[in-house]
Amino acid sequence: MSQHDRTIDLNIDGGESLGRWQLGADEALAPLASSINVACGWHAGDPATMSDSIRLAKDHGLALGSHPGFPDLVGFGRRQMAFSPVEAAQAVIYQTGALRALADQQGAPLRHVKAHGSLYGMMIRDDNIADAVADAVGEMDPELILVLEAGQTAERQRTRGHRVAAEAFADLEYTDQGHILIDPQNQRRDPQWCADRARQILAGAVRSANGIETPIQADTICLHSDRPGAEDNARAVAAAIRNSGMTIRALDPTNL
Amino acid sequence: MSQHDRTIDLNIDGGESLGRWQLGADEALAPLASSINVACGWHAGDPATMSDSIRLAKDHGLALGSHPGFPDLVGFGRRQMAFSPVEAAQAVIYQTGALRALADQQGAPLRHVKAHGSLYGMMIRDDNIADAVADAVGEMDPELILVLEAGQTAERQRTRGHRVAAEAFADLEYTDQGHILIDPQNQRRDPQWCADRARQILAGAVRSANGIETPIQADTICLHSDRPGAEDNARAVAAAIRNSGMTIRALDPTNL
Amino acid sequence: MSQHDRTIDLNIDGGESLGRWQLGADEALAPLASSINVACGWHAGDPATMSDSIRLAKDHGLALGSHPGFPDLVGFGRRQMAFSPVEAAQAVIYQTGALRALADQQGAPLRHVKAHGSLYGMMIRDDNIADAVADAVGEMDPELILVLEAGQTAERQRTRGHRVAAEAFADLEYTDQGHILIDPQNQRRDPQWCADRARQILAGAVRSANGIETPIQADTICLHSDRPGAEDNARAVAAAIRNSGMTIRALDPTNL
Amino acid sequence: MSQHDRTIDLNIDGGESLGRWQLGADEALAPLASSINVACGWHAGDPATMSDSIRLAKDHGLALGSHPGFPDLVGFGRRQMAFSPVEAAQAVIYQTGALRALADQQGAPLRHVKAHGSLYGMMIRDDNIADAVADAVGEMDPELILVLEAGQTAERQRTRGHRVAAEAFADLEYTDQGHILIDPQNQRRDPQWCADRARQILAGAVRSANGIETPIQADTICLHSDRPGAEDNARAVAAAIRNSGMTIRALDPTNL
Repeated sequence: MSQHDRTIDLNIDGGESLGRWQLGADEALAPLASSINVACGWHAGDPATMSDSIRLAKDHGLALGSHPGFPDLVGFGRRQMAFSPVEAAQAVIYQTGALRALADQQGAPLRHVKAHGSLYGMMIRDDNIADAVADAVGEMDPELILVLEAGQTAERQRTRGHRVAAEAFADLEYTDQGHILIDPQNQRRDPQWCADRARQILAGAVRSANGIETPIQADTICLHSDRPGAEDNARAVAAAIRNSGMTIRALDPTNL
Repeated sequence: MSQHDRTIDLNIDGGESLGRWQLGADEALAPLASSINVACGWHAGDPATMSDSIRLAKDHGLALGSHPGFPDLVGFGRRQMAFSPVEAAQAVIYQTGALRALADQQGAPLRHVKAHGSLYGMMIRDDNIADAVADAVGEMDPELILVLEAGQTAERQRTRGHRVAAEAFADLEYTDQGHILIDPQNQRRDPQWCADRARQILAGAVRSANGIETPIQADTICLHSDRPGAEDNARAVAAAIRNSGMTIRALDPTNL
Repeated sequence: MSQHDRTIDLNIDGGESLGRWQLGADEALAPLASSINVACGWHAGDPATMSDSIRLAKDHGLALGSHPGFPDLVGFGRRQMAFSPVEAAQAVIYQTGALRALADQQGAPLRHVKAHGSLYGMMIRDDNIADAVADAVGEMDPELILVLEAGQTAERQRTRGHRVAAEAFADLEYTDQGHILIDPQNQRRDPQWCADRARQILAGAVRSANGIETPIQADTICLHSDRPGAEDNARAVAAAIRNSGMTIRALDPTNL
Repeated sequence: MSQHDRTIDLNIDGGESLGRWQLGADEALAPLASSINVACGWHAGDPATMSDSIRLAKDHGLALGSHPGFPDLVGFGRRQMAFSPVEAAQAVIYQTGALRALADQQGAPLRHVKAHGSLYGMMIRDDNIADAVADAVGEMDPELILVLEAGQTAERQRTRGHRVAAEAFADLEYTDQGHILIDPQNQRRDPQWCADRARQILAGAVRSANGIETPIQADTICLHSDRPGAEDNARAVAAAIRNSGMTIRALDPTNL
């Protein structure tokens, strides 16, 4: 834990409904988490849904972050699009700005920025994309924390002077190289599997599907609220964290 | 002139390109105007176009405003959509926030908000819509000026405590009741017709197509940059303003 | 029953998912209905969802129809848009053509066209819109049946020479004038209420919320698959129809 | 020339306007070309623009084709999207069906299908995508001609039993391997450069930027109507074709 010795953030991707379409166990997960990343209208979400998520964050004392993605509702931001670094940065700023303005209306500050889906994955694989996004977020507001995959991606932007939170995933598989494996089918996970993954993260090393261990230093653990069984997973993970003697607490920009 | 005795703002609707599609004489009009209202991606514009417009505003010392519209690219925000007051307010905040964030990156402050097309028209006709939008803009930032049609619409929001600029149009016809007549065909106007309209506005009364005069008190005069001949119109209007002994100067929030 | 003495069509609005977002009890309702109206990508649906709905229709022997709406995913096609008659007609043809092509791939013929949400409502209230849509559907394929609200709207297009099915709604209230009352909240209905409504329709008169009876002649009865409890409603309505001695059978163009 | 000894098709990408935004010299090029590929609303175009292009095709006796692309208006279909083969095929069918229905209204038959931008490029690079699209087009209507880059891409689908037209480009550079080089800036070309390229195509070998010659057998030559100077290029190319003793004539499905 680079942030504190005894606390870790538990973040959920939320606000992924769209108008008439409801998605995600946000209400159930909010009491268990410490941060929420809110979709901003390009891959999911709309102004009303975003405003509801801001209210939920306030009601549960969750740190509020943006969750910008590719402009692809049908693909839910999971189909990679060939954005240039400048396009990626402007996409993140546009969406984050929209959310921040809606949050301003409710007096809710914006704490962090975390890219969604294939945009997040593109930042892991392409330093030019990650650099452009990180610089743009820093220009927009140097207090904003950028959430990035724990490992080289997070390290690089930290070294470049940005305020970064390293993220690990309690409901995803890892490759032998310590990268997350996206799960497009979003299949149900055994809550104990997730709890075990959380314990690995807290212990400082994740185990790949092949049994390879990679060291990891995470400031925040993510759970997807749109996965079937998300609430059970969250309960199991939260319990595992507490049983490790840790406290679930939102990211603190002054410690990153 | 409610703002100053000897100055008036000249605003242009700009940033109405979309990706590959170019529209509007923004470059030609920028040196003549004092304010620009930038489309925010729902009826026109995209993050790159918005960023270009912000740069243009900076280069020419134009006050920067948002120009939010309905989510209807094919209809260019000119087909009315049955938005509730809350939906209208959130639409304005979302789009204005997105522009403000892109402007922050360039260190350009946001001065005003002016709705586009049918959303502007809906605020003229429906006080509930106008109230909701005005209140939301005020909550987002009480310094932001809301640009509204000169007359009852502007007066109402001013009375409700908002910072309002009353707007008149140099390139539109007026009804006998002093309301603008939208011109969907966007036909070419004689520059002298526009100059004459500007003189009417400065003199405090506009003449309808039927020759009926309505008193008007305007803080800002609008020219559409996407109308054929926009540059000639702008030159004629700017000359008419100067020849009236007035100075073209951006809106000053401390005087509204 | 203008179609047959002893049969009536039971149609469901289906295919209203969108990418990651699932909506509607299509699978459960398909065995009970005789026709399905499939959303075409503007207010709901996408090519994959449409293809799934076509397969569902084939699997259950449902007559397949298009369900075109306004281009407004966030509003689910329920926010009226100021389309001209030509725009409305082209919107219907575009969407119906897209569905027909996907259906061609599976060898499934298209039987009918039924507008969705506010576009359907606009055809009830504005004869110019209804005329333009009806003429365009007829030009596209004179065999296609146009589904319209039972009453003057359906009568008018029938008189104008079009192949029309008159529709009544088992899960909606009626006004004293015999028009449907849209229920934006989509609240749960008592299945027996729906069954009773179906019996009224079969008996030739619907009762308004005020108890006023209006004569009705319907060729098809609609149930919304996205309403909570849709399956229970469908079972109750299907039973009511059968208990009236009627057979549920798809619309037959040669009888309309 | 695989089609005829003495004729070749000259096709233009057209209908690339969007609502208020005009693009392309369609009116000027129509008298010079024999085929037009019409954008279908995902990367450009809308039902009204499509209907106008259909009318233009009829007025000038142009063979009509669809020009489906990625759902990305801001990127004009030029940013690659990670579509699966099934998604690509359904995207082509959806868009082609929409155009065909609008064409049916005017009694204009659909002759061919040609993917746009990055979707076209993806079919060159990924056989799985090309196979899926080709099979879907064949299932939709075996008479439809699929236009593909001359070379292995076209050969493969022809071998797989599809009706294919091999395409070469008069206004693009070629790689040493005989593939087109997309020109995102869409820069102006010397008309004589285009005429020379056309002569190379007719003579059966194109020269790359490095001077490498690759054999080519083309049934159709493309000109982009949205390139500055498109009309001059078209005149020069048409003259070069005629001066080679060839006739410009639309593709004939019975010869492919």
